[in-house]
Amino acid sequence: MIVITSPGEMNAWSQSARRREKRIGFVPTMGCLHRGHLSLIDVARSHGKCDTAVMSVFVNPLQFAPNEDFDKYPRQWELDKKLAEDAGVDVVFHPSSEDMYSANAKTFVEVADLSSVMCGITRPTHFRGVTTVVAKLLHIVSPQVTVFGQKDAQQCFIIRRMVQDLMMETEIIMAPIIREIDGLAMSSRNAYLSAGERGQAVCLSQSLEVAKKMINAGEKRSAVILEAMRTYIQRNPLAKIDYITVVNTETLQETPEVLQNTLIALAVYFGKTRLIDNIIL
Amino acid sequence: MIVITSPGEMNAWSQSARRREKRIGFVPTMGCLHRGHLSLIDVARSHGKCDTAVMSVFVNPLQFAPNEDFDKYPRQWELDKKLAEDAGVDVVFHPSSEDMYSANAKTFVEVADLSSVMCGITRPTHFRGVTTVVAKLLHIVSPQVTVFGQKDAQQCFIIRRMVQDLMMETEIIMAPIIREIDGLAMSSRNAYLSAGERGQAVCLSQSLEVAKKMINAGEKRSAVILEAMRTYIQRNPLAKIDYITVVNTETLQETPEVLQNTLIALAVYFGKTRLIDNIIL
Repeated sequence: MIVITSPGEMNAWSQSARRREKRIGFVPTMGCLHRGHLSLIDVARSHGKCDTAVMSVFVNPLQFAPNEDFDKYPRQWELDKKLAEDAGVDVVFHPSSEDMYSANAKTFVEVADLSSVMCGITRPTHFRGVTTVVAKLLHIVSPQVTVFGQKDAQQCFIIRRMVQDLMMETEIIMAPIIREIDGLAMSSRNAYLSAGERGQAVCLSQSLEVAKKMINAGEKRSAVILEAMRTYIQRNPLAKIDYITVVNTETLQETPEVLQNTLIALAVYFGKTRLIDNIIL
Repeated sequence: MIVITSPGEMNAWSQSARRREKRIGFVPTMGCLHRGHLSLIDVARSHGKCDTAVMSVFVNPLQFAPNEDFDKYPRQWELDKKLAEDAGVDVVFHPSSEDMYSANAKTFVEVADLSSVMCGITRPTHFRGVTTVVAKLLHIVSPQVTVFGQKDAQQCFIIRRMVQDLMMETEIIMAPIIREIDGLAMSSRNAYLSAGERGQAVCLSQSLEVAKKMINAGEKRSAVILEAMRTYIQRNPLAKIDYITVVNTETLQETPEVLQNTLIALAVYFGKTRLIDNIIL
């Protein structure tokens, strides 16, 4: 496995791989790798039919607001390198913030409307930071396929919109959520949870199971489903709901009924830790 | 010469040309071609060392505000095709608005600060429209070299900033302004001028000559130079100054003295027609 830190070198490597007819699958991460991240490599190879896997490990300052956890965000570079190598990654791209953002950088890529709902309400500049860095990474890595996890569903739909709108060449694949045994969606931020919070955090995925059962039993009304989820979560005294919503996957606008292409998503605080989860119907 | 209207076909053509080791020089235009545009093809071949020339002809709705001249903007597709062919263009890319913007498009590329000064004051959404369409065109055409005319100097500096910030692969070349015999910078919008306005419009380039002479004689103070230019232009009763400014080419912020990397730029109305011109020192 090769480690590259310079954007120019990374681009040169990719261009050379493409000239050799390689099919590059790209997995952008902020490191602190868990099984969720590593599954994305497998998806790039299987579903994405890639013979070459590039993973980026970069904690992107632009997607954190000043009051958020950029400094505290868990970093474990030496362990990540080993995990990536064991997962069969060919190249890890690990630039510094200075490599990625020059002092006089001024350019932002923004997906309107989709970025200002759901997680965009509490994190108004977050998705602009995500789309800007992903646009840069796609230019640098030039992959045929890019894989994101469904855990960050809003992010996936926003990036897919960006790639279509800007006519970028890569295919965006959304890979299934990987969960702990009790159902908690894997996330680097789970490390922030106290034992008590960790115990109650399972209510996110369980509330989605509640929703699924209601829908399978014929319930279609979003308000009824949301009320049941809310009640379920509120039984956990450490859980503070940020939002629970039923939206269309294309527009991310709320829908009164659960139809095809519907996303049920939620964000819940445990202390300062904000966890998210979702299902797509 | 080939004419391509579909972004997908254009991209496939470019990818194929690049596999054959072709060096693509790209000249984005809004059509209504004059010698200024055609000179950009020569610059792509000479200075840009390109063996293949792609020109786009697309009047981009996103860079016109509702009160601007999008509908009225001159279009002469059949003539443009002939002019491009005679100039040795290999491919003209001529998409429709629907080809370039899907109904649910939401993505904007914006260069902060540089887009809100100078022409950005009277045209606050203009450069966002320019950077968004140019980002798309660069993804579609995938050129090694892209040539813009210095006549739109602010546009050149903004696009160069975007390409650097987003780590896009193309090299941006700024080509010299091509002028009519009397000095008026060539522009598709010159066609809007009445005979009386056309006669007085030469005051733009002449006021820049006044500035140049003062600088060659040792004058450095921006305020003194601007005052002389303003006085020169105001002798023409049909001319209404929008702005005259002395700025740094990197930041586009006003500078009190003319130094290296200084741009002197102006915009002047003749009736509803807004003309621009500049010199770089």
